Amino acid sequence: MSKKGAGNFFEDFRLGQVIKHATPRTITIGDVALYAALFGSRFVVQSSDMFAEKIGYPRSPIDDLLVFHIVFGKTVPDISSNAIANLGYASCRFLAAVFPGDTLNATSEVIGLRENSNKQSGVVYVRSKGFNQKGKPVLDFVRWVMVRKRDEAASVSETKVPKLPAQVEPKELGKAMPRLKLKGYDNTLAGSARRFADYKVGEKIDHLDGMTVEEAEHQIATRLYQNTARVHFNQFTEGKGRFGRRLIYGGHVISLARALSFNGLANAVHVAAINGGRHVAPLFAGLTVFAWSEVLDCREIPKRKDVGALRLRTIATKDRPCNDFPFKQGEEYDSAVILDLDYWALIPR
Amino acid sequence: MSKKGAGNFFEDFRLGQVIKHATPRTITIGDVALYAALFGSRFVVQSSDMFAEKIGYPRSPIDDLLVFHIVFGKTVPDISSNAIANLGYASCRFLAAVFPGDTLNATSEVIGLRENSNKQSGVVYVRSKGFNQKGKPVLDFVRWVMVRKRDEAASVSETKVPKLPAQVEPKELGKAMPRLKLKGYDNTLAGSARRFADYKVGEKIDHLDGMTVEEAEHQIATRLYQNTARVHFNQFTEGKGRFGRRLIYGGHVISLARALSFNGLANAVHVAAINGGRHVAPLFAGLTVFAWSEVLDCREIPKRKDVGALRLRTIATKDRPCNDFPFKQGEEYDSAVILDLDYWALIPR
Amino acid sequence: MSKKGAGNFFEDFRLGQVIKHATPRTITIGDVALYAALFGSRFVVQSSDMFAEKIGYPRSPIDDLLVFHIVFGKTVPDISSNAIANLGYASCRFLAAVFPGDTLNATSEVIGLRENSNKQSGVVYVRSKGFNQKGKPVLDFVRWVMVRKRDEAASVSETKVPKLPAQVEPKELGKAMPRLKLKGYDNTLAGSARRFADYKVGEKIDHLDGMTVEEAEHQIATRLYQNTARVHFNQFTEGKGRFGRRLIYGGHVISLARALSFNGLANAVHVAAINGGRHVAPLFAGLTVFAWSEVLDCREIPKRKDVGALRLRTIATKDRPCNDFPFKQGEEYDSAVILDLDYWALIPR
Repeated sequence: MSKKGAGNFFEDFRLGQVIKHATPRTITIGDVALYAALFGSRFVVQSSDMFAEKIGYPRSPIDDLLVFHIVFGKTVPDISSNAIANLGYASCRFLAAVFPGDTLNATSEVIGLRENSNKQSGVVYVRSKGFNQKGKPVLDFVRWVMVRKRDEAASVSETKVPKLPAQVEPKELGKAMPRLKLKGYDNTLAGSARRFADYKVGEKIDHLDGMTVEEAEHQIATRLYQNTARVHFNQFTEGKGRFGRRLIYGGHVISLARALSFNGLANAVHVAAINGGRHVAPLFAGLTVFAWSEVLDCREIPKRKDVGALRLRTIATKDRPCNDFPFKQGEEYDSAVILDLDYWALIPR
Repeated sequence: MSKKGAGNFFEDFRLGQVIKHATPRTITIGDVALYAALFGSRFVVQSSDMFAEKIGYPRSPIDDLLVFHIVFGKTVPDISSNAIANLGYASCRFLAAVFPGDTLNATSEVIGLRENSNKQSGVVYVRSKGFNQKGKPVLDFVRWVMVRKRDEAASVSETKVPKLPAQVEPKELGKAMPRLKLKGYDNTLAGSARRFADYKVGEKIDHLDGMTVEEAEHQIATRLYQNTARVHFNQFTEGKGRFGRRLIYGGHVISLARALSFNGLANAVHVAAINGGRHVAPLFAGLTVFAWSEVLDCREIPKRKDVGALRLRTIATKDRPCNDFPFKQGEEYDSAVILDLDYWALIPR
Repeated sequence: MSKKGAGNFFEDFRLGQVIKHATPRTITIGDVALYAALFGSRFVVQSSDMFAEKIGYPRSPIDDLLVFHIVFGKTVPDISSNAIANLGYASCRFLAAVFPGDTLNATSEVIGLRENSNKQSGVVYVRSKGFNQKGKPVLDFVRWVMVRKRDEAASVSETKVPKLPAQVEPKELGKAMPRLKLKGYDNTLAGSARRFADYKVGEKIDHLDGMTVEEAEHQIATRLYQNTARVHFNQFTEGKGRFGRRLIYGGHVISLARALSFNGLANAVHVAAINGGRHVAPLFAGLTVFAWSEVLDCREIPKRKDVGALRLRTIATKDRPCNDFPFKQGEEYDSAVILDLDYWALIPR
């Protein structure tokens, strides 16, 4: 743990180092209500205990992304307090369903380090894991972050850039979702008749709605996760910084895009894995987030007849409707794009 | 259910059609906390389990208006996604108390249709019902909405304008309130010594306080209800629209006015029915809501000695204190009036 | 109780008068989630049921300051509806841990009165007490408030200014904290290795981070406590007033400073008493709060080997980092200081 909250600098990290993060957190139905109110998600399994029970859950599970944000938040004081930028995620797998009352804690292992040529900073790769109160892993992901050095002259650990898989394999999916009793799955209550077989590779879906973000909203959300990254909360300092404004936590955009994706993906009730994600541009309060998705792959999961997996690219934009699916122009992203997320969602067959 | 969230247009509705709405929702003490924090309501029965138990409830019930907003929210994607305006409510009855842990779902029956002469839109009348997880009705109300046509040339269903009662009859009131044990009812804890007999027809009550609404607040509230009406959330689109701003959900004003009405109506702890309501003018963030009420009627409820019913007109205004009871000038509402609500509240005798 | 919410004026108070406040309130995990999201506190005992159980609590207790705010809120309609200013607190003691599901109510006794020489107002001293549903005291504090007179000519009660202790004595501390099983106390999970013995009188600690406050945030928080003080919510009226803006509830600053103090005081998990507090200057939305603390005293608690007490002065500032510990220049506070709080925190030995 870092002293007095100043956090670690690039030269403080060592390859193979395992960091146990502070502040285990009990997730409750209070958190669930707040998350619902911040994003307006309508996926039925997370919304209705009754529905969840009918298809084989003991009750509604915690939204996958809320689990992600809370585990991620735990890692911030140690890993990214002195980050210049969050560069990416990979190989994020949801390993067990989390329920209200569970207590989550987290660890991170340093799996890669590469100093930048300017000697002022470097890239830290960590594999972070979230566990419930029984010590069972619930989440596992890699992220890499550019972190400042405290002292340019400081010697640093050996360089290692880990090889990361382009995607989580279908056989690894579904550990956080019980085998569903599909007889209990009511399409009308779920909001859509489209099941696994109704999606085709290459299909593009406009999620239609837009959601404007207010400062109070992203601050409340990010504090809910106990994420302490300063850039989200401190207008006094950020007002003097490169954007002149507080930066919205990238995970806020992911949650908004996921909530909007109900329009077109209502039955894709579980985020099973995130293959990769890129925060292409920052989001600021007052802007309106839109999103669209492309079906990149449709895969069966070995030994499961209840659900299939859709690999989705979800693109979020700011102040730009997505009816014409803005993405890239040549190598460059459309200037409105703020998120390029590649993930697996499970959907009943 | 509508496809991809685009919602129904006027020509999609048929007389007698019954629509089962998506996304059953479990209401929890998390929702209760958030609702309390958004409106600051102080009615004792909804605030204190201890008090509620002493007078005959199993515990604090969910605030009546929170039940209303959640059931209403379920109907929005199917009924009013393409609405130009919510024109009115009538005959809204609370039929069973709702408690934390209950799961609500909703249906609507189309009971009236009338195309407008310009052929661009029409008025849809629906009777919507909310049910708990046991299938028991908890709420029943009629609303009518002006809905756009997708295609001016589309043929429409026959015209029918339903007859709606001017008020819910006293004998229909009280189903959502157990017979109270008045010995356990402590006026001091409830905040007022005024009971049923202390109100007179014609009495006007200034609710004194004003509450300024922020964008984050109404967005958080409206998402809590999973109400997806676009005008509340999307500044990008609304900024180009007729007001240049996001419109605040009319139900937000009702909840504010009800919370403010504690000053003067502290013992009117249960909203039993809404006879009618009119959103006279829109509310926008940054404005301050005030309210006053007039006692329209004081009625006993057949076979109940524990509580009586006050029929109340509650007027809410924007940026206008209510010490002189602003209402109408001739036929026209005072320009500050935003809500004219006619409802029955139950109050101990 | 006051009529119609107009509240008491100075001449309405009598020495020795005991006021039983309205609206008992059940505190839930919904409130806990919202409080967490509003302040981002990371103290482990309040964050993790698992951790709390390991050290001897039945589960995570409610944050001490949330208990304070709720009890304080109950007193507002009767005591400070017509306040010109909250002048101070003293002798605030936390007497029993509060847990989710507990219902709190409050009483106040008028222990001092002093009319101002201008006859327009006077200072009211009250001892307020909070009780749980079993009638057990959970909190006890004195505050004094300058309250308007309704009528300058009104005769008033005899003058009495109570003697207040400069501090709560160490032997009085700890009633709200069970005897801790320190074997279960994991420094890493708590976020710091610094225990009681590691702090020295005179040490100054910069809490590093800053937190910008939005209107929606302080309004949501203050309504959560059912605090009805008009100055926090009504821009229409405040816009015409002395600051032109809504005033943020002073307790909001206390909670922010406490949450920020995790950086440097992570193991000081319980606020046991508040010796005194002064809101030196008002806070408004859009400003950023920073904080620092000085260790005023380190005291053992009679008969307890598990924890010790740190007497802390916590200073909060607006738009002013605290790396150089801004406090007073001569007799005058630095112009950035908004809070000067003197309290006892308990910390494992």
